[in-house]
Amino acid sequence: MGERRGRRGREGSAVGLEKYWASDPMDVLRVRQDFVLADVDTGSAPGFEGKKREAEKSLAVGAGILAGLQEQLFAGHQMGDDPRRILLVLQAMDTAGKGGIVKHVMSAVDPQGVQLATFKKPTEEELAHDFLWRIRKEVPEPGMIGVFDRSHYEDVLIGRVRELAPPEEIERRYDAINEFEAELAASGTTIIKVMLHISMDEQRSRLLKRLERRDKHWKFNPGDIDERMLAPKYREAYQVVFDRTTTPYAPWYVVPADHKWYARLAVQHLLIDALEGMKLDWPLADYDIEEQKARLATG
Amino acid sequence: MGERRGRRGREGSAVGLEKYWASDPMDVLRVRQDFVLADVDTGSAPGFEGKKREAEKSLAVGAGILAGLQEQLFAGHQMGDDPRRILLVLQAMDTAGKGGIVKHVMSAVDPQGVQLATFKKPTEEELAHDFLWRIRKEVPEPGMIGVFDRSHYEDVLIGRVRELAPPEEIERRYDAINEFEAELAASGTTIIKVMLHISMDEQRSRLLKRLERRDKHWKFNPGDIDERMLAPKYREAYQVVFDRTTTPYAPWYVVPADHKWYARLAVQHLLIDALEGMKLDWPLADYDIEEQKARLATG
Repeated sequence: MGERRGRRGREGSAVGLEKYWASDPMDVLRVRQDFVLADVDTGSAPGFEGKKREAEKSLAVGAGILAGLQEQLFAGHQMGDDPRRILLVLQAMDTAGKGGIVKHVMSAVDPQGVQLATFKKPTEEELAHDFLWRIRKEVPEPGMIGVFDRSHYEDVLIGRVRELAPPEEIERRYDAINEFEAELAASGTTIIKVMLHISMDEQRSRLLKRLERRDKHWKFNPGDIDERMLAPKYREAYQVVFDRTTTPYAPWYVVPADHKWYARLAVQHLLIDALEGMKLDWPLADYDIEEQKARLATG
Repeated sequence: MGERRGRRGREGSAVGLEKYWASDPMDVLRVRQDFVLADVDTGSAPGFEGKKREAEKSLAVGAGILAGLQEQLFAGHQMGDDPRRILLVLQAMDTAGKGGIVKHVMSAVDPQGVQLATFKKPTEEELAHDFLWRIRKEVPEPGMIGVFDRSHYEDVLIGRVRELAPPEEIERRYDAINEFEAELAASGTTIIKVMLHISMDEQRSRLLKRLERRDKHWKFNPGDIDERMLAPKYREAYQVVFDRTTTPYAPWYVVPADHKWYARLAVQHLLIDALEGMKLDWPLADYDIEEQKARLATG
């Protein structure tokens, strides 16, 4: 293991992945008690000492590491029945870069090992069920990295801001979410919840680009501007989410995302940290190797 | 469109993607009337004039082209309600490289645009239904590239070889498959069916590698050798598949796969050909661009 992805001593050696990191994003981005969203500088790059150029180099190094770890996670279930899995939850305002994370971070990994679920406006059928019904169907299988592009948190974000449910139902949901995530964690799921955070100015400039470029028009929706006008209410709703659903088994990370290069790198690093924390290894053969070699020699 | 992926004249200019191709794999690999599987040289590289090194370069060029085309396919459904989609069916003996195609070809594409379905031994529930029941659930949505790692063809391959169903049921299935695929095609699905074909010697050497390397043990299953012993029967069953299910709307391609670099490149090229055949373009905005710019300027 160590050899194939470079040595990462506990002392945090500066080799490979850690080269430009002064501190671990898992520490510096983690939402803790008394966290205040309004205090986050969306243009900052906590823990990282390089710029775009170094970030790109670092992302390429990380891609190989992530791919290797993912293969072990996958292998562990294929042969060893290891129940463990990862769930990455991505939440953000429009244009903050969820899609870019999927494209630029997850594409490093074998598609067979990724379970991506995109949650849009719920269908009639979904609305007829509890809000977690459609979420439970997309929970990652053992050995997989699951990615939620939006999630059950929409039901306490847009749900709250647009009053899509009575206040007491919204209240109930925070607890339901914590119970649901506790259950996931108990079944072997490492949960990483990420909010990508951009400034209003940065959002304007990204929306404008979608309006200006013919190859980006399809990414724009007039509703994005309606939502943008509600940004202060969304920030309040996010703050409540952090206050109510930050748990030791399902922590939130707020990632400054005005710099796309930082957000991608940080999320990649969170995934790598989570996988390294699992102490993965190749599973042992559950058959007799010499016996199979003999069969193969004659068959 | 032309600019971003290099010019590909109808004369088959040698720029970029076509540099090392003497003929189009969509032509040379296609199963036609009187096709005989036994005549295929598994170690050949039909149409390609380079070796591994050139193939790797070519695969990298193709990756960018494929990614660009896929984005247009996806965009066309997101904004223009374009119903079109791709279904790539991968069939092969163990170790022939289905997984490698997914990993090395499909990973070039935004994971949001790929729907991968892996069909293993059917569950009890699946067996209680018609063989196409589980398949229908995984058919790609509009705008997507669907990939079937094994497929409904297992039900006339292992199904026939191991006599998992009575002969008259197996017979019925060929027609059912043709009807099903005609239906898919009519709903806007471009179907590309690929059999990766390797020699017995190449399979032995790949299985042996899985037995020899600790990081490959999880990929080996003693059942793989049982299946290997039935290879002549499988070849017969494949021949019947080609005879019965090669249709204008769902053609088969037999890809010599002793050289992994060739198989990957050929399948990538088949996908690119199919996407280019769709004459994709960016969808037109379904909102008033200037009006939205004005809203954004004030909001």
